[in-house]
Amino acid sequence: MSIRIGILGYGNLGRGVECAIRQNDDMELVAVFTRRDPSQVSILTDSATVCKVDEITDWKDKIDVMILCGGSATDLPEQTPKYAQYFNVIDSFDTHARIPEHFADVDKTAADSKHVAVISVGWDPGMFSLNRLYGNAILTEGKDYTFWGKGVSQGHSDAIRRIDGVKDAKQYTIPVESALEAVRAGENPELTTRQKHTRECFVVLEDGADAAKVEQEIKTMPNYFADYDTTVHFISEEELKKNHSGIPHGGFVLRSGVTGWNKENKHLIEYSLKLDSNPEFTSSVLIAYARAAYRMAEQGQFGCKTVFDIPPAYLSSMSGEELRAKML
Amino acid sequence: MSIRIGILGYGNLGRGVECAIRQNDDMELVAVFTRRDPSQVSILTDSATVCKVDEITDWKDKIDVMILCGGSATDLPEQTPKYAQYFNVIDSFDTHARIPEHFADVDKTAADSKHVAVISVGWDPGMFSLNRLYGNAILTEGKDYTFWGKGVSQGHSDAIRRIDGVKDAKQYTIPVESALEAVRAGENPELTTRQKHTRECFVVLEDGADAAKVEQEIKTMPNYFADYDTTVHFISEEELKKNHSGIPHGGFVLRSGVTGWNKENKHLIEYSLKLDSNPEFTSSVLIAYARAAYRMAEQGQFGCKTVFDIPPAYLSSMSGEELRAKML
Repeated sequence: MSIRIGILGYGNLGRGVECAIRQNDDMELVAVFTRRDPSQVSILTDSATVCKVDEITDWKDKIDVMILCGGSATDLPEQTPKYAQYFNVIDSFDTHARIPEHFADVDKTAADSKHVAVISVGWDPGMFSLNRLYGNAILTEGKDYTFWGKGVSQGHSDAIRRIDGVKDAKQYTIPVESALEAVRAGENPELTTRQKHTRECFVVLEDGADAAKVEQEIKTMPNYFADYDTTVHFISEEELKKNHSGIPHGGFVLRSGVTGWNKENKHLIEYSLKLDSNPEFTSSVLIAYARAAYRMAEQGQFGCKTVFDIPPAYLSSMSGEELRAKML
Repeated sequence: MSIRIGILGYGNLGRGVECAIRQNDDMELVAVFTRRDPSQVSILTDSATVCKVDEITDWKDKIDVMILCGGSATDLPEQTPKYAQYFNVIDSFDTHARIPEHFADVDKTAADSKHVAVISVGWDPGMFSLNRLYGNAILTEGKDYTFWGKGVSQGHSDAIRRIDGVKDAKQYTIPVESALEAVRAGENPELTTRQKHTRECFVVLEDGADAAKVEQEIKTMPNYFADYDTTVHFISEEELKKNHSGIPHGGFVLRSGVTGWNKENKHLIEYSLKLDSNPEFTSSVLIAYARAAYRMAEQGQFGCKTVFDIPPAYLSSMSGEELRAKML
């Protein structure tokens, strides 16, 4: 029998989850829940239903794991505790500073209602977090480095789009190669924000907008750009569509540490991702953790979990025997 | 109270474990067990005792986790099931093909005697295995690549030393950069043994030995060298000591896969290690899993485990709250 999956929210992430389910034989998409008019939402999976989110609780015995594909700013803080009352749930809550609070909210309802809720799943938080943990547990004396990119930052692209005179924009976060190389060389550099990443912007102007003024406004924008070396390119709408419509991303987690009685030996652990589609990769991680949540629920291990709490074997469709024979 | 650690076998690995314990405040080395005369074995930790291995069972209530630092060929297949009767144990059993059998042997005695035994801990098997598993669980459609090096292969160095006329030797396994680049470029190449690694040998000859004959014998040695492009350098004993006395190693695990409704997006996950000291890094992994074994034993989760079965959080000395706040 397949693991029956529901999706709440059908944007880039929801669509990615739908695609990922197709690549996992032990899973089946049962229903997609949306705030929009279901008749206006067309999905790819013939066998699944599109429903109004108001009907979601009618499905509580027909879905094994609900994947929550909303945003971290306002959707997930409300949705994850709420739907953990009715379903095993997975979310990709990524506001790092608010994770402890979110965990506490979700843990209470999940434990009380005997469900498993896995929060903050994806690649950062998610696979990058795992690599920070493993790296720190192994090399207890050392330094951590996380670099992001090259990839599209949705938040920074949105910030540019809000500027007067800007019609559309795409922003790439780019790790500084020389900083990465210094870390790899074991130099343990202290890096400022500016030394770690640069920002590259592709901007389409409204007719008659002042390019110099827009460029100045981008480069001096506090939090988003002021602390970085930023490059601005003005391009046509056609060029933006043709060359910048993808959502690539990626990055690097490095742990640089020492061992030996006198700390005489250096070691470097490096984990990196190069992703053509940020939402589809995130979705693939969500689906692996949906399998884990299903298994933990079957074993009665209820409550809120993160990637730190879940034995790696739970993510795989292979049995313990197969994993030991083929992967170990 | 500290986790009380014992070490069985005081070679490079045992000494590495001793150093790693010093870097973990919640651990304490209690005793080292040896087949040699204890009065002839001098260790670095003042507060620990050196004992004959015959006395090991006298320590069964004084040691929380015993780290087995013997070899995979003959020591561990016998030692791990045997000592799992008396202790929670960790080993670094690395004969990949015999892991299922070893697991079964150890699981029985560990479960019967209510101990936790974690086998095949280190980096391959170990951290590399984890990355193969995570990579496969996330990118279900794709290809796996493991490259080793640059690093010293003890087995290949020993094989050279057994040749007539060879006084000493060191062999480095080196990944082929162009093969790595093809994988990184998403080309999914089919790679032969020869295309993945080269072998570089530094050889000290006995007086009067025939260099050409030794070189020929190395390059044509079945299993070890015949399938590889091998370079042989003849050097002096002094040069070998000066430039080749370290035990560096490392390598790469890559998972290259596709997502999307029509598999239109490519992704690459890469994990790599660059290690000055292979035994000290392996020891650091062993010690992190010793912490996990101690915790699982406290919770009554007995039997044989691998890195696949252990929640990442168990490896860290931080609490769940701290991990979520700092690492997620």
